[in-house]
Amino acid sequence: RPRLPPIKLQPRFAPNTPHGSGGAHGGGGGGGGAAEALPPRFAYSRPEFLDLTPELLQYSTEHASRPVLTPRRDTRLPWRTGYAEVINAGKSMLNEDQACCERLFVKKSSGKQRIPLHFWGVFDGHAGSGAAIVASRLLHRLIRDRLCDIAHLLENPAQAPPICLTKNGSPYQVDSKKGAPLEEDPDSPNDPSAHFYMEKTVTLESLVMGTIENAFKQMDDLIEKEKSSYSISGGCCALAAVHLMGKLYIANAGDSRAIIIRNNEVIPMSSEFTPETERQRLQYLGFLRPELLGNEFTPIEFPRRIQQKELGKKMLFRDHTMTGWGYKTIVEEDLKFPLIYGEGKKARVMATIGVTRGLGDHDLKVYNSNIHIKPFLSCCPEVKVYNLTEYEHGPDDVMVMGTDGLWDVTTDREVADAVTSFLSCCDPNDSMRYTLAAQDLLMRSRGVLKERGWRLPNDRLGSGDDITVFVIPLVGLRWET
Amino acid sequence: RPRLPPIKLQPRFAPNTPHGSGGAHGGGGGGGGAAEALPPRFAYSRPEFLDLTPELLQYSTEHASRPVLTPRRDTRLPWRTGYAEVINAGKSMLNEDQACCERLFVKKSSGKQRIPLHFWGVFDGHAGSGAAIVASRLLHRLIRDRLCDIAHLLENPAQAPPICLTKNGSPYQVDSKKGAPLEEDPDSPNDPSAHFYMEKTVTLESLVMGTIENAFKQMDDLIEKEKSSYSISGGCCALAAVHLMGKLYIANAGDSRAIIIRNNEVIPMSSEFTPETERQRLQYLGFLRPELLGNEFTPIEFPRRIQQKELGKKMLFRDHTMTGWGYKTIVEEDLKFPLIYGEGKKARVMATIGVTRGLGDHDLKVYNSNIHIKPFLSCCPEVKVYNLTEYEHGPDDVMVMGTDGLWDVTTDREVADAVTSFLSCCDPNDSMRYTLAAQDLLMRSRGVLKERGWRLPNDRLGSGDDITVFVIPLVGLRWET
Repeated sequence: RPRLPPIKLQPRFAPNTPHGSGGAHGGGGGGGGAAEALPPRFAYSRPEFLDLTPELLQYSTEHASRPVLTPRRDTRLPWRTGYAEVINAGKSMLNEDQACCERLFVKKSSGKQRIPLHFWGVFDGHAGSGAAIVASRLLHRLIRDRLCDIAHLLENPAQAPPICLTKNGSPYQVDSKKGAPLEEDPDSPNDPSAHFYMEKTVTLESLVMGTIENAFKQMDDLIEKEKSSYSISGGCCALAAVHLMGKLYIANAGDSRAIIIRNNEVIPMSSEFTPETERQRLQYLGFLRPELLGNEFTPIEFPRRIQQKELGKKMLFRDHTMTGWGYKTIVEEDLKFPLIYGEGKKARVMATIGVTRGLGDHDLKVYNSNIHIKPFLSCCPEVKVYNLTEYEHGPDDVMVMGTDGLWDVTTDREVADAVTSFLSCCDPNDSMRYTLAAQDLLMRSRGVLKERGWRLPNDRLGSGDDITVFVIPLVGLRWET
Repeated sequence: RPRLPPIKLQPRFAPNTPHGSGGAHGGGGGGGGAAEALPPRFAYSRPEFLDLTPELLQYSTEHASRPVLTPRRDTRLPWRTGYAEVINAGKSMLNEDQACCERLFVKKSSGKQRIPLHFWGVFDGHAGSGAAIVASRLLHRLIRDRLCDIAHLLENPAQAPPICLTKNGSPYQVDSKKGAPLEEDPDSPNDPSAHFYMEKTVTLESLVMGTIENAFKQMDDLIEKEKSSYSISGGCCALAAVHLMGKLYIANAGDSRAIIIRNNEVIPMSSEFTPETERQRLQYLGFLRPELLGNEFTPIEFPRRIQQKELGKKMLFRDHTMTGWGYKTIVEEDLKFPLIYGEGKKARVMATIGVTRGLGDHDLKVYNSNIHIKPFLSCCPEVKVYNLTEYEHGPDDVMVMGTDGLWDVTTDREVADAVTSFLSCCDPNDSMRYTLAAQDLLMRSRGVLKERGWRLPNDRLGSGDDITVFVIPLVGLRWET
């Protein structure tokens, strides 16, 4: 009979230790002892553009006052970007969110032409801030470097990327007369002239998408590799936006969110990846590779834990193929803990983690076991594209990128209304206007400290989480190229 | 070095043999010889409600004239349903589409109360009509039987289905005081009162959805099982609609389509499952279970076949994690045939089949090989729900269900405009009005035979495929309960 796994659910993300090397998530912790001695890859800090003195850095960790931090008035972020952040209400020592806003250039190794690239990233760490810090320092560079590899293709935006390249990167043409396999058109098998040479056309846009997707994978591999030399604690959700040649590419791996607010209308630019939204992918993996479940978990979902005495009775269930529910007769195997368990913010994979995509987490294990969570987590983002040149944008049209601390307490609609009404009262020439809008959003979502905790004006509980938010004007292009 | 698979693409679906037992798809054909001798499960025929004489049945297979068949004026389909069908332009001997329209009752084994159930199904067969005929005769009964098992729950629609049932079907309550494992609330680990007993609430609607999903699986299992005693050729796409207690449940496995036309607005009620729409699911399976690819196929997608001399060069690719494209250096392994290949109507799984969900196809193999396609096909439908009681419907508001022959040549918008303008000129009390609308749709999509084939009024090529269509009034409920 399978051993009943511990019924105690793990906290969403176990508390971190400063600069810690995992050991969080209550886990057995991979290489354990040895890793403790390794130096951190980067020391804990806040984003460089906040330009914090050691005193201010200390002040930023004040859980009792939870100050909302913004760049100073004399700091200009690229693209007039607005930014604000706030620490959680004591759930971790340090702010596990990180952020990055950079202007870079894509250029060929030979040649002088360079294409400007803007990058914004929010990284929501868990079980330590290590992975979030590393990703906030390196992801944009990996994306830039990979785009440099295709710089010569970006310079000819009117031309579709060649299917095949030689080693030095120049297009390679097959001789379709001589070498190419001609295929029979299956719809006209009797017509000897109906031969076709199938070749898909790939757009430059989808090549950039793929480049960003692969940069996320490279980032995740790099974290894993560097763990042999450095302490890189935990994992992180990563939401990145890239501006390149008039298009915004928004890549999301985790439960952060980006929305565009245009004319006070909300346009979702990301979707969240959680045990609930990715249930079928996770169940499918557990079904196809049961050895990953370590004999402790069942890929079938049940609405609650099953008890021994319920053997032989019928219980509601759903498997990886189902969206609805059915009844099944309970067998011994079903007494294992469900791979996906819990609802909403309490939903977990293997009773351990509440997000299903992100970077890091290579050592994460199920509590008191040797079962790795990582195979179920994906580091691959979903990328959406917004063509800035397709629309006319006013100064109050923005993209908001925020970690889940924001969206847990403030809906898309509320964010849009707050930002729109704030900006409409704000001098369009004030260089701080988008930062002030970001600050306003955070004050609303954090709330104020009352006797019964941090409360919103409507007396609902404010966010107890770290919150990081970018407010990015869509007319930004006019100021910088 | 892997053997290069044959570069000749298979026709979308190979021509059938009447009452044939596979052997289509050029395939090696499973149990082959023995199966040939088995009797068909059901003899070939057209839907019973067409009430065809042997002469008319013969006439229905006239590829030269392609008559549009409808029920006679004195035949009343349940729910005033309109219906029409037409055979293809010679690609198969017989019409491989099948249809079913039935009124049934859900009742408890004990008890007199019965709940009316309406069923509509269109089944688009390939490589023979066997699977489509079996599904059109049995699927609705399987759904009805499974609903009977939960009839006592349907009778109390206000109450959520119990999580657990005893063997005889009555709710089973665990004693939450004594037996239930209390779980610690991870968000308040220090508050001893903050224990919660997680239990998901499942709606009756999602129980009906799950019941339909599982009936599709049961249907597929049954076809496999009956193949030992009968000849059941090919496979079929299945699109089914169930009306139960004021809601329409639309279940789709394949590339047929259902839309609702309300006030001349189009509401999609299904999505199609093809090698292109399901690329990532199929690649994921091939990646996790490479043995299913038989050393002939690669799960990586390339925009065209790779040639031997391109080894070492870089080619565009995407794997199961990617939506965009990237370049990869070509290795020996990449010379295998891509699992997914081709575009649009020519896209294939393993160069063999152009749809990725449906019933049957258990013996389907890659041409000249022993590689089974079935593990990549899914018999599980996607179910969407439309609540009829939520809207006011006029006599011209309908649901249209059609096989891909319709949608390949006529867009959703064109179908909506055609139906709306046809019905608005039609007496609302004419019992034939929905059948006449269906007939009109088919005439438009089939076209007329000219020197250069079947042509639409705009001279584009008409559908060469079988077409089957239901036009179902949404006010139907008023006539029947």
